[in-house]
Amino acid sequence: MLEARAAVQKLQTYHPPLAGRQGLRLDFNENTVGCSPRVLARMRALDAETLARYPDREPVERKVARFLGLDAAQLLLTNGVDEAIHLLCSTYLEAGAEAIIVMPTFAMYSIFAQAQGAQVIEFRSGQDFAFPTESLLAKISPRTRLIAVANPNNPTGAAVSGSLLLQVANAAPQAALLVDEAYFEFHGETLLTHPTRPSNLFVARTFSKAYGLAGLRIGILVGEPQQMAMVRRVASPYNVNAVALAVLPEALQDTPYVEHYAAEVRRNRNVLEQELGALGLHYWLSRGNFVLLRIGPLHGEFVRSLRERGILVRDRDSDQGCEGCVRLTVGSDEHTRMLIAALRSVVEELALRGEVQA
Amino acid sequence: MLEARAAVQKLQTYHPPLAGRQGLRLDFNENTVGCSPRVLARMRALDAETLARYPDREPVERKVARFLGLDAAQLLLTNGVDEAIHLLCSTYLEAGAEAIIVMPTFAMYSIFAQAQGAQVIEFRSGQDFAFPTESLLAKISPRTRLIAVANPNNPTGAAVSGSLLLQVANAAPQAALLVDEAYFEFHGETLLTHPTRPSNLFVARTFSKAYGLAGLRIGILVGEPQQMAMVRRVASPYNVNAVALAVLPEALQDTPYVEHYAAEVRRNRNVLEQELGALGLHYWLSRGNFVLLRIGPLHGEFVRSLRERGILVRDRDSDQGCEGCVRLTVGSDEHTRMLIAALRSVVEELALRGEVQA
Repeated sequence: MLEARAAVQKLQTYHPPLAGRQGLRLDFNENTVGCSPRVLARMRALDAETLARYPDREPVERKVARFLGLDAAQLLLTNGVDEAIHLLCSTYLEAGAEAIIVMPTFAMYSIFAQAQGAQVIEFRSGQDFAFPTESLLAKISPRTRLIAVANPNNPTGAAVSGSLLLQVANAAPQAALLVDEAYFEFHGETLLTHPTRPSNLFVARTFSKAYGLAGLRIGILVGEPQQMAMVRRVASPYNVNAVALAVLPEALQDTPYVEHYAAEVRRNRNVLEQELGALGLHYWLSRGNFVLLRIGPLHGEFVRSLRERGILVRDRDSDQGCEGCVRLTVGSDEHTRMLIAALRSVVEELALRGEVQA
Repeated sequence: MLEARAAVQKLQTYHPPLAGRQGLRLDFNENTVGCSPRVLARMRALDAETLARYPDREPVERKVARFLGLDAAQLLLTNGVDEAIHLLCSTYLEAGAEAIIVMPTFAMYSIFAQAQGAQVIEFRSGQDFAFPTESLLAKISPRTRLIAVANPNNPTGAAVSGSLLLQVANAAPQAALLVDEAYFEFHGETLLTHPTRPSNLFVARTFSKAYGLAGLRIGILVGEPQQMAMVRRVASPYNVNAVALAVLPEALQDTPYVEHYAAEVRRNRNVLEQELGALGLHYWLSRGNFVLLRIGPLHGEFVRSLRERGILVRDRDSDQGCEGCVRLTVGSDEHTRMLIAALRSVVEELALRGEVQA
């Protein structure tokens, strides 16, 4: 009788709520207005030959590396950041190794680490989701092989300074430190171009958020060349599709488009945060393109009521430390106005004002 | 100091010769004329919203399953067959488990199995690459967890009957038997719809070959629902990109296109095989969209001479049992005429006729 590995049998299936996403999609932190028109035009100009050929990642990796001021040997294009996480786990995590993950955070760090048979040490962030540097340092052991940090973090929106992350990297030279900068464009701080990157530091970026290309699956993993040579060995040479490779240089070149959208989101994040405060809702200041708020026992009602008004948001109640919480994606000016109008109506309907406790 | 897992440190990097592919591409067994025009039109009609959203695999899986006469729970769409292989290895191969692979064959079975830390038992196929059923059965041990067979095989073109494969599956119920039917459309026989599929049998299909969509990365993995539930756990929910998901139903519906191309290739395979015989070259009868021939010590010269004539073919000299061998992809009528004209000229130039020994 064929049996899956014990680690796989213990694993939970991660099944995001993708079905029936009709309406204004503020549930997956996507770009709400879509990619640069130049990117769309480039895709539409592709011919059958581009689809028929196996994709050739390397020339595009050289372009992306040059754009970021990096050497091509430091950079791998991946099938979304999900694959970058998977590859790091495959490269560094033996069964019995330890992976340290601060909760709540993006689910895939824990899933891929557990799938690899590693012992996942999950522990809570500090007060108001502050990065728990001291307790994290205390968890590091000789068996630690991976530490994964989303910065800014999802779903909380909290960010940690580069100097604290470097302290973590230096305290665990035997471990890969993954700093997932999926929301970099809305935050503005990065370790990607830090002058003294430790050799165990990996930085991930994505084109799924600010660039509006979640459908194309393009992530970037950056690390030291000797380490990246190892990571490359466990990747398929054809991991990134040809459409993604063809449009990626166009996406990078249209910097005004992305900068404009990111600035719009940052502005609307402030607008939304002020409105949430005025509505008497408890929220956390965010560095991403989303805001987490605590609704309390009515979180399910709240999500349903917004859905009835044509707006999809994400219930995060089941995330550790996020009991009663809901995450709202911040988008364009128009979409933020629509969200705020709906929020006012829902708060009224559910009589939430004043009911909410931090 | 951060160190990759021992299994990764021992691994070879697989680096296919993708650079500088100018000319008639008969080196990667791609479709030489490209996908259905309906598929291309569908891609060009996609909007920015499709690119901005995270891809939703499940509705497309249901359509593909229905098309193949399967239940959706039996089927997983993958980022090419490469990912299907990777997921099977992740699901079933513990460190110390054994994976059996008959050589020569597609490189990724061995790479992903080794990356997982499994002991890979590679052994040679029989005379003229015949499937070595008896010796394979003798290699099965209680630790066998994966047996991977490409049928038809690449790069040899040899095929094995479904009944022998079922015999292997039944002899190793503790192992996953992967039957990789990437070249199914040129062969016509399949285990996908066999009435009594053993529960440890997995069948893979691809859209990279007959369908002309290697660039989009779409593979199919089929197995028993309980097993597939395990495989799904180690896959990212967003493994297949949105362009692939959008065009896939179109590709399936345009069956006349694929049937016409596959028939053209089968006809040209016969034409090419006869011509190779007439030229005095030693070749093996093939069930795929390619033919393997033994050139001998001049294999490198042969490949270079064809390249000078604008035709790319693949040197397979370094594959086990393929010393001096070259693989030619079979394509359209026009491309086969071009190949044959070039072959005649190269055989003349290198004075190969009569020099070649089986």
